Amino acid sequence: MTDLEARIAGLEIRLRRAEDQLEIVNLIASYGPLVDSGDGDGAASLWTEHGVYEVDTGTYEGRDGISGMVESGAHQKLVQRGCLHMTSPPSVHLVEDAAVAVTESQLVVRNREGGFDVLRATAHRWELVRAADGWRVERRTSRLLDGSGPPRKLLRPPNLP
Amino acid sequence: MTDLEARIAGLEIRLRRAEDQLEIVNLIASYGPLVDSGDGDGAASLWTEHGVYEVDTGTYEGRDGISGMVESGAHQKLVQRGCLHMTSPPSVHLVEDAAVAVTESQLVVRNREGGFDVLRATAHRWELVRAADGWRVERRTSRLLDGSGPPRKLLRPPNLP
Amino acid sequence: MTDLEARIAGLEIRLRRAEDQLEIVNLIASYGPLVDSGDGDGAASLWTEHGVYEVDTGTYEGRDGISGMVESGAHQKLVQRGCLHMTSPPSVHLVEDAAVAVTESQLVVRNREGGFDVLRATAHRWELVRAADGWRVERRTSRLLDGSGPPRKLLRPPNLP
Repeated sequence: MTDLEARIAGLEIRLRRAEDQLEIVNLIASYGPLVDSGDGDGAASLWTEHGVYEVDTGTYEGRDGISGMVESGAHQKLVQRGCLHMTSPPSVHLVEDAAVAVTESQLVVRNREGGFDVLRATAHRWELVRAADGWRVERRTSRLLDGSGPPRKLLRPPNLP
Repeated sequence: MTDLEARIAGLEIRLRRAEDQLEIVNLIASYGPLVDSGDGDGAASLWTEHGVYEVDTGTYEGRDGISGMVESGAHQKLVQRGCLHMTSPPSVHLVEDAAVAVTESQLVVRNREGGFDVLRATAHRWELVRAADGWRVERRTSRLLDGSGPPRKLLRPPNLP
Repeated sequence: MTDLEARIAGLEIRLRRAEDQLEIVNLIASYGPLVDSGDGDGAASLWTEHGVYEVDTGTYEGRDGISGMVESGAHQKLVQRGCLHMTSPPSVHLVEDAAVAVTESQLVVRNREGGFDVLRATAHRWELVRAADGWRVERRTSRLLDGSGPPRKLLRPPNLP
């Protein structure tokens, strides 16, 4: 390999990592808008076919399970009151074809006076994989920030190979 | 074109897309700090010369219109109470020299007790174009997340070519 | 230098800038999760060895100072109630081996009814440097958004060379 070829190969590897991070950030950024618009299939499409969303209020498996959570009466009631799932910028830890991202979020819901209340503050750990058609969520684990150990553990940087 | 030239050309195209996304994210990230500091000209400079900001409370056209909104008594009163326009990370959809980004935001204002109230939760769709001196907002459409259809429609992924 | 070499050199410079921005965004995104998990050493590792965090409630110098702030009784009490330091996406201004980033944040804390209150809204200016092992914070200056001039000044775009 010539020197120029080696430099090009190095650029290709580094650029792919940058593109991976951008794609993951974009994927996570689209979660809030999808669930606040009440779009169950859109939200489910962020996960792999057998992806899991496990939160203190329930466990949802596969795209049907995740879509069903968004389409449920409980979620649609929030959407109809006016709700905002506001996500922090993700901290992304990338290793080859897998990644772990950590975010925090607020669930903000309209109240009777026309203002908004913060109903939840939640810690999230996203486990992502590179699929044939782009990055997808394999598992999201979420816990209410209630002062206990489990949500705080989710927020720690992951131990990656 | 040689194989090396083709690889370099491919890198140039991909890197430009990555730079576009980074620039758009940075542009949108600067909106909140500018309006919360009360800087009308700074906020207006994010838009194209004839850009539009259309929100449920009014429509502001051109850089003068947008600057005027920030410099208005209503906005400056918020700034003087202490306000935060907190933006979610944008979900960016890029097509050549145009882009659509979706964000959600909160307007948080200081109350008499020294804490803060969430006055608004808002859905935003940003239509952006690549101008001679970088990416600019051509139109931002914003609606209060009040449970009705229009804000929820803004949050859906755009239909792009 | 041949034409191909010049194009490769151009790509290397531009990609490094993109990587810098991604790394800075990731660094800042990890602050909230670290302090909300109560991890003082983790939070301190974002700063340079002699880095400073100056906020209206105190000044913390060096990694020991910053770690001590997170490990303090006042901060740990927030963590045990359940708290969220929610950060906006940073607006990054990069110049060679230094950068300034502007963010806004909310401190959200669990209340007795199980919901959450917004205790603070804060303006931040991050001064960052490229260190041997990656980007680090040299100084973070933070002020409560109380309507006064100093926090609003922090939010203005920096004057860079």
